[in-house]
Formats: sequence, structure tokens, C-alpha cells
Amino acid sequence: MRQLYHFPLCPFSRKVRVVLSEKKLEATLLYEPIWKRRPEFLKFNPAGQVPVLIENILVDPRRPPKEHVIAHSQAICQYLDETYSERPLMGDTPLTRAEALRLIGWFDEKFFLEVSGPLLFERIFKRLVGHGGPDSARIRKSLGFIALHMKYLDELIQERHWLVGEALSIADIAAASHLSTVDYFGNIKWDDYKHAKEWYARLKCRPSFRSLLKDRIPGIPPDEIYDHLDF
Amino acid sequence: MRQLYHFPLCPFSRKVRVVLSEKKLEATLLYEPIWKRRPEFLKFNPAGQVPVLIENILVDPRRPPKEHVIAHSQAICQYLDETYSERPLMGDTPLTRAEALRLIGWFDEKFFLEVSGPLLFERIFKRLVGHGGPDSARIRKSLGFIALHMKYLDELIQERHWLVGEALSIADIAAASHLSTVDYFGNIKWDDYKHAKEWYARLKCRPSFRSLLKDRIPGIPPDEIYDHLDF
Repeated sequence: MRQLYHFPLCPFSRKVRVVLSEKKLEATLLYEPIWKRRPEFLKFNPAGQVPVLIENILVDPRRPPKEHVIAHSQAICQYLDETYSERPLMGDTPLTRAEALRLIGWFDEKFFLEVSGPLLFERIFKRLVGHGGPDSARIRKSLGFIALHMKYLDELIQERHWLVGEALSIADIAAASHLSTVDYFGNIKWDDYKHAKEWYARLKCRPSFRSLLKDRIPGIPPDEIYDHLDF
Repeated sequence: MRQLYHFPLCPFSRKVRVVLSEKKLEATLLYEPIWKRRPEFLKFNPAGQVPVLIENILVDPRRPPKEHVIAHSQAICQYLDETYSERPLMGDTPLTRAEALRLIGWFDEKFFLEVSGPLLFERIFKRLVGHGGPDSARIRKSLGFIALHMKYLDELIQERHWLVGEALSIADIAAASHLSTVDYFGNIKWDDYKHAKEWYARLKCRPSFRSLLKDRIPGIPPDEIYDHLDF
């Protein structure tokens, strides 16, 4: 059975969980407390980060399948998209794939650095690791970036049904994964961005998104609209 | 003519410059002072970052080619690799492509955050922008990370001719692009990492690497071994 090492609110793990589900691929989710830096886990990914996919690949039908370790969310997503290609999620031309990669970079790098990364670190990780209280100045700074990102997303989605044209792509999934992490804390004023809200509502209704909406961090309940389909 | 907006020591721009050259594609390099946030440039890439590729694509032979803007280094690299595919640079199976993406992520994200990003910002950007002197504590911290990365690279390259098997890939190019930025300042103790040194020497000799070794930042000369093929 395929296994995915993940952390519940990690946007990168979420991106892979949604891609697996959109491709109707089953995987056992294994909770990885990355701050413990377990040697067994570091063997899978020396970067110490989730997600890591353990994929069993049948090379010779007379032998048991061979275990392959794939680390890094974009590596896993592109691997899955190529290998299970009936319903491609990376765009259908080199130019749409480039646009998908640009937007994946926007959310996985820029949004993560400015917003989802610091919020997760200050509010969840510090508490789990016992690293002292959250740094409220850093949280305020991150919250200050949200409006810029939401305005950009709202503009983009005004012109397109999905972020990269007419079909759902990993760009939508990456964006929604990061936003869903921030939405757990109730920090997105959805009513100010009606196009983005309509787009996120469409994503939230998808079966692939359901398991994300069930994530809970003990002692840190989500905002009340977090798992509401009507928000 | 194809155009590439870049900044000379930017590792992401360098990665695209080497890929263009490995594919024997010509491009006019346009120096972009990203800190000025020129509105004309922000139209190309709202993230405000280099590299940005302007690609002229012939759709209808009776009309002039259409200009396409591609932003984000990995988007550009994968676009070029798919479109000019005679000599693929992303690995030859889904698993080798996943390994290439993992290592590209290692250097473009982890190494950039820990090492090449802070060093560039403190030593070059602050000076060009007039943002005060470099923060020596931050520089020391970044320098402290170099040994860990070099040790890992040295181990990887001990087992493989190139980072992802027997052929040069964008993983090698990304790694060398970031390292070359740090090497401009002479901060890598190559003699401590003989496998990595031999690998970097092979890259440095390639014609695709030559233009990188000619980059100079006015007022900040490179370390004396920076452009030596025997270092």
C-alpha cells in the first residue's frame, strides 16, 4: 500500500493529499512530527520535510513490488501526474504547464514565506515543540500580506474558470492548500474577494478536499467556518 | 529574438542562462534592477522577480511571431526542456525526474533560504539599493550552513557521475548556479569536498557556464579563483 508521510496542516502535504485523491489513488497517511527529526525519517528525506511518498512499484511480476521514496511536494505531484496520466493536472500545453508552475511557485514559495509558513510556525509548531509563545509582531506582519495575495488571486480568477484555464490544475490545488491552512485560523475575509470565494467554494465541495476539512490540531480548534461549505 | 530579464548574480537567472546555453538557444540578456519594481517589469511578473523569459512563438506563418511571457525559473526551465527536447535535461523516467525536482527544490528553496539568498541580499542588494551596511551576524549564520550542504553534495556525487544519474540535468545546473553565486565571494572550501570539487570543475569547463564566470558587480570584485578553471 502507498504511504504518505505528512503533517495535518502542512500546505505541501495537503497539496499531495488532494492530488492523490483527484487521481483516485489510495494512500495510508502517516503523521510525521518533523521537529523530532527522527533518523528513520531523515533517511527518507535528508531535508527533514514532509511530504514524503513511499510508492511500491512492480518491476518484475514474479517479485514483490519495490519500494521507492519520493520527497518534495512538487516532485511527488509531477511524478503522480505523469505516472497516472488519465486526468492530467499540470495543463495541456508547454505554455499552460509553465503558467501552472509559475503559480505553484507563487504559493509554495512567496505565499508560504510571507503568510502560511510564519503563521504555521508561530501558532502550531512553537506550541507542539514547546518553543515558547507565538511572536505576535511576526503574526501581524504575515496577516498584513494576505490582502495583497487575495487581491491578486481574485483578479486572476475573474478572468479564468480555474487558475490555468478551463481545467483544474495543481496550481489551484497548491493555492487552495496554502489558503486552507490560513483559513483554519479564520484569517481570510472571503466576502471581500467574491471571485476567489466562488473559486474556493468550488474546491471545498470536491470530494478530494474533504479529508483536509476534517484535520484538527489538538488544543487548537479551527475557525467556525473552516469546514462549512457555505462560508 | 528571445529575451531574458535577469540579474547577474541571481542563482535563478543563472540556472535559466545555463539551460538556454546547453540547449543552444540564443537570448538577449536584459539587466533588471528588481529593487526598483519598475511597473513595466511588474506587468511581466507581478512577483517582481527575475528571471522572466520573453519567447516569440510563431502561431501563424503569415503573421509575426507572438510574444509570450514566462516567469519563474522552474517554469522557464521545464518549458524550455519540453519545447526544445532533443537533449532532455530533466531525467529520462518519472522517478529520475522526481529526483531531479527534489534536488532542484533542495537548492532553489533550502540552500537559497539558508545560504545564497541571505548572502546576496546582505552583500549585493543592500549596497545597490543603499539599504545600509551588511548584517554581519546574518552573514555568519549563512556561512555556517555551507558545510552541511557541501557535505551532502559531496556524498551524493560520490555515488553518481551527475546528480541524477549518468546525464547532466537541471538538478546539476540549479545546484551549480547557487554554488557559483556563493563562490563569487570565495566562501566554499572546495578542497574539503573532493567529489563535489571534481563535479563543479566539470561544470565550470562547460561552454554554457562561461558567461556566468564573466559576471562582475561594479565595486564588488569576485574572489580570485571564481573564474579559474583550475581552482
